[in-house]
Amino acid sequence: MAVTSTSAPSKDKLLLLLSGKPRPEWIPRIESKFPKLEVCWVDADPGNTGPSKEAEVWQGVTILVTYRPPPAELMSSVRFVQLVSAGADMWAQHEVYKDEKVIFCTANGCHPPQIAEWVIGAWLSFQHHFARYAANMQKGHWEAPYESTVQDSTECRMGILGYGAIGRQCARVANAMGMEIYAYTRSERVTAAQRKDDSYCVPGTGDPDGLLPTKWFHGASKESINAFLGQDLDILVVCAPLTTETRGIISREQFEILSKKKTFLANVGRGPHIDQEALIEALETGKIRGAALDVTDPEPLPSEHPLWKAPNLLITPHVSWQTTNVYARIMDILETNLERLDKGEKPINMVNRELHY
Amino acid sequence: MAVTSTSAPSKDKLLLLLSGKPRPEWIPRIESKFPKLEVCWVDADPGNTGPSKEAEVWQGVTILVTYRPPPAELMSSVRFVQLVSAGADMWAQHEVYKDEKVIFCTANGCHPPQIAEWVIGAWLSFQHHFARYAANMQKGHWEAPYESTVQDSTECRMGILGYGAIGRQCARVANAMGMEIYAYTRSERVTAAQRKDDSYCVPGTGDPDGLLPTKWFHGASKESINAFLGQDLDILVVCAPLTTETRGIISREQFEILSKKKTFLANVGRGPHIDQEALIEALETGKIRGAALDVTDPEPLPSEHPLWKAPNLLITPHVSWQTTNVYARIMDILETNLERLDKGEKPINMVNRELHY
Repeated sequence: MAVTSTSAPSKDKLLLLLSGKPRPEWIPRIESKFPKLEVCWVDADPGNTGPSKEAEVWQGVTILVTYRPPPAELMSSVRFVQLVSAGADMWAQHEVYKDEKVIFCTANGCHPPQIAEWVIGAWLSFQHHFARYAANMQKGHWEAPYESTVQDSTECRMGILGYGAIGRQCARVANAMGMEIYAYTRSERVTAAQRKDDSYCVPGTGDPDGLLPTKWFHGASKESINAFLGQDLDILVVCAPLTTETRGIISREQFEILSKKKTFLANVGRGPHIDQEALIEALETGKIRGAALDVTDPEPLPSEHPLWKAPNLLITPHVSWQTTNVYARIMDILETNLERLDKGEKPINMVNRELHY
Repeated sequence: MAVTSTSAPSKDKLLLLLSGKPRPEWIPRIESKFPKLEVCWVDADPGNTGPSKEAEVWQGVTILVTYRPPPAELMSSVRFVQLVSAGADMWAQHEVYKDEKVIFCTANGCHPPQIAEWVIGAWLSFQHHFARYAANMQKGHWEAPYESTVQDSTECRMGILGYGAIGRQCARVANAMGMEIYAYTRSERVTAAQRKDDSYCVPGTGDPDGLLPTKWFHGASKESINAFLGQDLDILVVCAPLTTETRGIISREQFEILSKKKTFLANVGRGPHIDQEALIEALETGKIRGAALDVTDPEPLPSEHPLWKAPNLLITPHVSWQTTNVYARIMDILETNLERLDKGEKPINMVNRELHY
């Protein structure tokens, strides 16, 4: 099965290589829609499985649903990979990924609702001093009014570095709170068509037509990024894919620029987007008002790492993508793509092999 | 100056009786728009003032801007009161308030952006386990994935008890996150005209036309409330005014109803809306998943009160109304009303003397 072929998924074997609780209802669900497709499940977390039957289950697998890249030798028959992550950066050096005949699709669009909630929740918790009030509760302390200052979001500006599916849902919620949105994309988006995003979108969410930003910025150079960061942003959301261009995109020089408005930094991209030493310094010296990281470098973050102790910081262990709804959405994308492949149509959410997303 | 009179504010004396930092720029701002109006300021927090000059400054005051009710004898000349709170429940027994010739207007509409942020922030912090991750940070502990379950808001339903200006902005943000909205009002709202809210509204926020709820409920009886609470709400926002009808509106019986869906409770109304003993029990026994209170009974909450120790609860000390933007909005309302009184027009945000809001 390849994008140019019309061979049906009915001749294929699909392997669900997933972590977490098995969801046995999925196999009959997929099989009922694609009756001749063989569907198997393997727990991707080796700690959970008993004696491995992997070699056997991998025999003849042509369609793979996975987060992490398995060894290339297991994937000799695989022709279509449905990733359950929004990016493909883990695959960049993988032999199967380098083979352009194998189709890779991302789960782009499954994660925006919960990741945007994480961003907005972290921002509001910070702006409304929830951590301090929680500490007061331990002491039974009712703080006097006016001991703190709160700035609501109505006069605030959100800068979104990477205006893809996740950034667009951040924009939708922020806009509903009265914020102004500035968008940054790698390539220029001038026309209405260019501003559209055709990835999977949960109905009633996001900004698929790109109507919310009042200003658009673009570029791949440091100068372009710096010009964007200098726009008096109250909050900067990093949700760009990790590429050689975006590694270390927020470093010492950028924190200097952000210090003008003491921009709050939310990173839901990848840890290496941020120079963590520079971040710690920016937090300790008050150059930025605060930050929230769902991703670090490395992961897991070692317990002795100084980042844990930086002030005005929330760290969560790469969980912002989690929701009880995520796999239902991935199944929607998978089924859409199985149908499209069946009809010889182009799947949705196909990876760009140069950009890895 | 009365609502039926066309006498201009130029013949009046306006007293700003406000707590917190004095904002000296307001007096020239008001005086420049109403040149013959005399404008004075008194710090409403007596701890901050030196020897009181109150009696002197109260002489001839006809227009009062205040939060708390001052003694009636100081208000003998007052004809118009601009409250800086959204409700007038503190005034119910006040002699001047009982005089229907004195116009009372609320600051309804100044608080929705920040109070909705407080509600959404508390909800998201709870749903995304931020308090636990903050505790993990103290130990440098990177929790393994799948140790927790997150439910995003896309399949959730928000019930709003009191669909006024505050509830409407909660609805706007929740809707942007993909939530369904159920509204509750005291009187029935069937027509488009009935569903409108003509109170002051920060541009780009709220739901002034009442278009967001998919279902409307109404009534003043316990049965009506209970029917609303039985609608599988994931979050219940209490933002009704405190009246004899709404006192204790959420008690033991109502927590039983909410236990079906383990509804999260957010109270930004008044402390006495909730039976706190019943709330503590509901939290301790897991009848509801969690709660957030910006108001308690009494306030300040004594340090030995058992509410401080209830699980899955956030308490903040009646601060959700705070924002650096609030007084600019109150000034907008005040100036709008001074102009309207000047022209003999009906002011905005007039109090309903029966309902006290």
